[in-house]
Amino acid sequence: MRLLHEQTTTGAGDLFDGEVEVAVLPTGSVEQHGPALPLGTDFLAAEAVARGIDREDVAVLPTVPVGVSTHHRQFDGTLWADPETFEDYVGEILASMASHGVRKAVVVNGHGGNVDALSRCARRLRTDRLAFAAPWNWWSSLDGLDEELFGQSDIGHADGMETSMVAHLAGDLVREAALEEAEAGAADSWGRSVHGAEVGFDVTDFSESGVAGRPTDGSAEKGRKLYEQAVSELDALVGWLTEQPFDALLPEPHR
Amino acid sequence: MRLLHEQTTTGAGDLFDGEVEVAVLPTGSVEQHGPALPLGTDFLAAEAVARGIDREDVAVLPTVPVGVSTHHRQFDGTLWADPETFEDYVGEILASMASHGVRKAVVVNGHGGNVDALSRCARRLRTDRLAFAAPWNWWSSLDGLDEELFGQSDIGHADGMETSMVAHLAGDLVREAALEEAEAGAADSWGRSVHGAEVGFDVTDFSESGVAGRPTDGSAEKGRKLYEQAVSELDALVGWLTEQPFDALLPEPHR
Amino acid sequence: MRLLHEQTTTGAGDLFDGEVEVAVLPTGSVEQHGPALPLGTDFLAAEAVARGIDREDVAVLPTVPVGVSTHHRQFDGTLWADPETFEDYVGEILASMASHGVRKAVVVNGHGGNVDALSRCARRLRTDRLAFAAPWNWWSSLDGLDEELFGQSDIGHADGMETSMVAHLAGDLVREAALEEAEAGAADSWGRSVHGAEVGFDVTDFSESGVAGRPTDGSAEKGRKLYEQAVSELDALVGWLTEQPFDALLPEPHR
Amino acid sequence: MRLLHEQTTTGAGDLFDGEVEVAVLPTGSVEQHGPALPLGTDFLAAEAVARGIDREDVAVLPTVPVGVSTHHRQFDGTLWADPETFEDYVGEILASMASHGVRKAVVVNGHGGNVDALSRCARRLRTDRLAFAAPWNWWSSLDGLDEELFGQSDIGHADGMETSMVAHLAGDLVREAALEEAEAGAADSWGRSVHGAEVGFDVTDFSESGVAGRPTDGSAEKGRKLYEQAVSELDALVGWLTEQPFDALLPEPHR
Amino acid sequence: MRLLHEQTTTGAGDLFDGEVEVAVLPTGSVEQHGPALPLGTDFLAAEAVARGIDREDVAVLPTVPVGVSTHHRQFDGTLWADPETFEDYVGEILASMASHGVRKAVVVNGHGGNVDALSRCARRLRTDRLAFAAPWNWWSSLDGLDEELFGQSDIGHADGMETSMVAHLAGDLVREAALEEAEAGAADSWGRSVHGAEVGFDVTDFSESGVAGRPTDGSAEKGRKLYEQAVSELDALVGWLTEQPFDALLPEPHR
Amino acid sequence: MRLLHEQTTTGAGDLFDGEVEVAVLPTGSVEQHGPALPLGTDFLAAEAVARGIDREDVAVLPTVPVGVSTHHRQFDGTLWADPETFEDYVGEILASMASHGVRKAVVVNGHGGNVDALSRCARRLRTDRLAFAAPWNWWSSLDGLDEELFGQSDIGHADGMETSMVAHLAGDLVREAALEEAEAGAADSWGRSVHGAEVGFDVTDFSESGVAGRPTDGSAEKGRKLYEQAVSELDALVGWLTEQPFDALLPEPHR
Repeated sequence: MRLLHEQTTTGAGDLFDGEVEVAVLPTGSVEQHGPALPLGTDFLAAEAVARGIDREDVAVLPTVPVGVSTHHRQFDGTLWADPETFEDYVGEILASMASHGVRKAVVVNGHGGNVDALSRCARRLRTDRLAFAAPWNWWSSLDGLDEELFGQSDIGHADGMETSMVAHLAGDLVREAALEEAEAGAADSWGRSVHGAEVGFDVTDFSESGVAGRPTDGSAEKGRKLYEQAVSELDALVGWLTEQPFDALLPEPHR
Repeated sequence: MRLLHEQTTTGAGDLFDGEVEVAVLPTGSVEQHGPALPLGTDFLAAEAVARGIDREDVAVLPTVPVGVSTHHRQFDGTLWADPETFEDYVGEILASMASHGVRKAVVVNGHGGNVDALSRCARRLRTDRLAFAAPWNWWSSLDGLDEELFGQSDIGHADGMETSMVAHLAGDLVREAALEEAEAGAADSWGRSVHGAEVGFDVTDFSESGVAGRPTDGSAEKGRKLYEQAVSELDALVGWLTEQPFDALLPEPHR
Repeated sequence: MRLLHEQTTTGAGDLFDGEVEVAVLPTGSVEQHGPALPLGTDFLAAEAVARGIDREDVAVLPTVPVGVSTHHRQFDGTLWADPETFEDYVGEILASMASHGVRKAVVVNGHGGNVDALSRCARRLRTDRLAFAAPWNWWSSLDGLDEELFGQSDIGHADGMETSMVAHLAGDLVREAALEEAEAGAADSWGRSVHGAEVGFDVTDFSESGVAGRPTDGSAEKGRKLYEQAVSELDALVGWLTEQPFDALLPEPHR
Repeated sequence: MRLLHEQTTTGAGDLFDGEVEVAVLPTGSVEQHGPALPLGTDFLAAEAVARGIDREDVAVLPTVPVGVSTHHRQFDGTLWADPETFEDYVGEILASMASHGVRKAVVVNGHGGNVDALSRCARRLRTDRLAFAAPWNWWSSLDGLDEELFGQSDIGHADGMETSMVAHLAGDLVREAALEEAEAGAADSWGRSVHGAEVGFDVTDFSESGVAGRPTDGSAEKGRKLYEQAVSELDALVGWLTEQPFDALLPEPHR
Repeated sequence: MRLLHEQTTTGAGDLFDGEVEVAVLPTGSVEQHGPALPLGTDFLAAEAVARGIDREDVAVLPTVPVGVSTHHRQFDGTLWADPETFEDYVGEILASMASHGVRKAVVVNGHGGNVDALSRCARRLRTDRLAFAAPWNWWSSLDGLDEELFGQSDIGHADGMETSMVAHLAGDLVREAALEEAEAGAADSWGRSVHGAEVGFDVTDFSESGVAGRPTDGSAEKGRKLYEQAVSELDALVGWLTEQPFDALLPEPHR
Repeated sequence: MRLLHEQTTTGAGDLFDGEVEVAVLPTGSVEQHGPALPLGTDFLAAEAVARGIDREDVAVLPTVPVGVSTHHRQFDGTLWADPETFEDYVGEILASMASHGVRKAVVVNGHGGNVDALSRCARRLRTDRLAFAAPWNWWSSLDGLDEELFGQSDIGHADGMETSMVAHLAGDLVREAALEEAEAGAADSWGRSVHGAEVGFDVTDFSESGVAGRPTDGSAEKGRKLYEQAVSELDALVGWLTEQPFDALLPEPHR
């Protein structure tokens, strides 16, 4: 199976009884990515990576496009859901899949702001013994590629890493001419800290252009490498999941 | 503008200040459509119609794929959100757009089960004076086409009308060979009534195959006509909205 | 049994163990019905129909008088509850009855605005396997009487049909002298549609007097016929319910 | 005005602009009152007292019949709503009245279990500066009648005081023959205390028959006196309310 | 065991398997207590009484310091939580203890405003068969001491009784010089009643200094007696609880 | 001012009008810290650091002892609140302070599991323009001390860093004899990652003793250094806050 929504119910039923072991749900955001990258950067990347794996044992669910992006709200075009709403929407989708017997899942996430909500959601599904859903960001396991390609060890926002990804996936959505402007107004890194306290609640607190990092470092070729690495890791993660008995993934009893 | 998620934040800002007047949000469902049609039928149709209009004054938002489909839950592959969650998710997306100044919207809906939640959502946005969002089903204004093409005056489920739409939009997703089986197990019409009380809560209460209507009545050519009619009506609806001053769309004061 | 609230707990217990099979709960609204009909029209009608059946196997519960009437809020005297509050209040009452063993119910409803909330409520009770509650509007099954008496096939608001019902049940509550004024300011039908989109959120969007339909068509005699037809259908519905084993009313398992 | 639900919207509007100052909302419960008194005792009493006052400046709203009665749930026929649901339902009704300009209210309550929820509700309406709603139990201000008639200073449950009230209001609903049995299984007083801790959560924790007090002390004549005293106090309370400017009833600012 | 938070998890586990039978949770408030007593009066008293018992079979939990004090909000320094939040916070703490096998509890409360929320919380835990938690106010069972020492039979606010308690527990927190001023602006008793309706929603409605009662009646010596009486009653209450089989504390089944 | 709860309301009022600029709220948890450290480790540390600063311009609020610790629930003595409950409880306390004019705050946190909830809480208070609350963990700004003392750059759980802190603050609560056992069953670091996905939802998923890190590295002397560094950073953070005009701390408007 590849895309769940292209199957009929009877076809899906046959596959759930047989080869399909893991649901893969892409999540992202629609939010400012500075003057050069498209608003949909995060869900486009997540969707592409999720659909990039070539395995018979997964069902890829439709993408949840809008996420937790309140901190970008001062920038035009940003859409956002409350953390609780996003958590519930994702959780109910995964619980639906579980009701059909597909109780292992990977949430392929493209937006850092979703991480806390996805973590709460996954914890709840597991505590309720409904499903085991592993939240996974496409940039979480780059095996040194980030250092090698960008000389950095974490992702920024609309930075070289994201610019590369979009350049590879949908090159015409990168406004090349605006990359310099994006970088000129960028923060060096994400957030703003004062004596150890995080006081950068909104992106406007620390970035002029909405960007954190160096967009001009990006290229389609680097994007290809990121994409391939991400797909390969996701493939391995799914492989690991298929090997785990469902019960072994559930919480331990009281000690 | 066409697709919001392909714009940059700065590009979107320019358009919101100028030509864009109306947000268009496709909503649908992932749910059984019998043995012949894909699970994604409803959101695919809504998305295609929404993206089908050719106007500079609209921004088409990313599709909300999963809706209120609990009543299909006994069939494999059906995904569902609670009505409240769906209402909140859609409402928060539309409120986000309103915060950027785009306060008129059409929700292009492809799933009957979403109607009540969309209605509550639209009412709330209007009462709170945030936005005027008109929920609109693609089959709501067919100008007699339904009678002409199918001899019926309302939509069923996975019936000739929906089969036609999918046949036109994504023909290879129709399992032609299963249409007979779909029809054999179909209900004549949606629901089950006993002495005026609706007692068909789930589709399993009244349909064997999950279908209500006659799938074999469908054809790609009929689908083309439906699609063109729907796009034309949506175009007219958006045109009407652009002409209304926002304040004229808000609730009247106490009498 | 007739009225639950007139029984003692011990008397009720005996009846629940024996003859009582079905709980009947009247719901309505307190909302504008134009210048000629009383604010309580909807709950008075529902209560009268519910109490009109003459069967030993039902317990009629006290009337829930206030419902989902936000769309009438610009008119003096309209009371309303949030849809969620109304849904919860009704659902908790029916769940209470179920806890005593009376797990089948009919909600005799007199207000169209309650329908969605009652439907969600009934679905939830059934999915939770607590109770089977059939929402039923008194005008849902008129067997052609509406066409015959009023030349119309659906109910409006404070129209001839409702005027007749009040004229029959409580004639002195109809302000005859205001019927002409009510009709002069009335909409032809309920709601307002633009290119297939429902844009009449509030009654003030489409009616001057708050009325939809022709109040002057009403008469006490027509009301008597409506009432008798409604009571007869309700009797038949309860009869049908008593014959169903409770388990047969519960949702089917996964297919 | 007397009963709001018997007015038309236009009639109500005229009265709200003129003579009507205070909304009166009866609340009660449907719950066991032992083997001799009807389940509806509490709402019947509240409704009768509310409707007993003879003043032009009040609008009596329809009765909210079901209240917070979980602690009686082991007895047949008891209905209950969650405290939050009851609080919301009452609060939304009173807020509706406030939206029409009638911002002072008395909640005439017949059930002790409702008191906390009504208090939270009234506090919220006042803090939100929507309405001033005084919760008032019909037995709150008996001016020594309780001592004089029953030799007790507080109400029990289905005791002589409640028996008297029902005997006066609806004598045929008192099962005289069961009064002895009611008393034989009664608790001396409400609740159960252990070293100062209230451990009687449910009535079953401290009463065999569901009764607390001495039902045989009741009589219709005593009921008449109770009723007249209650109506007289309510009349005085409404009189006091009409004299207060609304702003003087709102919370004080920060000191 | 004495204080839970001083134990290790392994030590706690041993004690839960053996001697510990009852959890004791102090709750109070941070709210104005007039010009002479500290804001923390209520939680300090509850904590001291809870920690005052000398038994091996209890675990004293950390104090929940902030409670339901909205009605004191016009006075500087008052902190408050919504009743629902407080109820949930306390309930989740007690449910945690129950998950480790300690399913009996006493909530030692020092603030009258918490009583309703604690009662709802305790009822819910018991109905859900998770835990039996007895809410207990330190002044609930004074065996005549209140009459003897203060000539009153109930507690006020920042009155002689509370002044005594603080004088005994933390004498330097009593501003002796302000006691006269406190009393001069005090209400005679708590609240304000008009014809039997409670209309004193906020303390500012009935007290100038925030006090109800006679602070100058207090003394450290009286406080010592109050404290000893309270500790002794709490000890007896815990003793009673340890003797009850857990199942005997759960709700009775339907009658 | 130091401790808010020791002030009278009048004293607090004077200080709020004058010297007090910042509220400091300690939060922690009661949860397993392995066999050697007390359950209250996190709140004890937060409270001690918060009370350690010596400034006239702060009010230290009572400690919120129980936090988000579900992931430790398999270990005896762990108490936990739902993330939403904890977020609400903390947020309502800080909003109370803001209502008295103290609208800047630092949440001195001692438990990593609270971070997400505190972040949501702070964001909400700021977006609502009620308060600016900076969440701050005592280990967030150690200026290289962690590397110098423990050769590590982040905190574990019940590791050398926490052992040191408790040893300094309350040495007799460290069970020295159990430190070896704690370390023998410890995880090297927090959590468990598979191909970049975090799959260690509960501590039992990756640690035998509940510990992550090397408890035997701890000492009271190291604890003293940690404590002093933390207090010094907190002092600086408060100093920074006092210098910011409140309006400058609020969110920027739409760009």
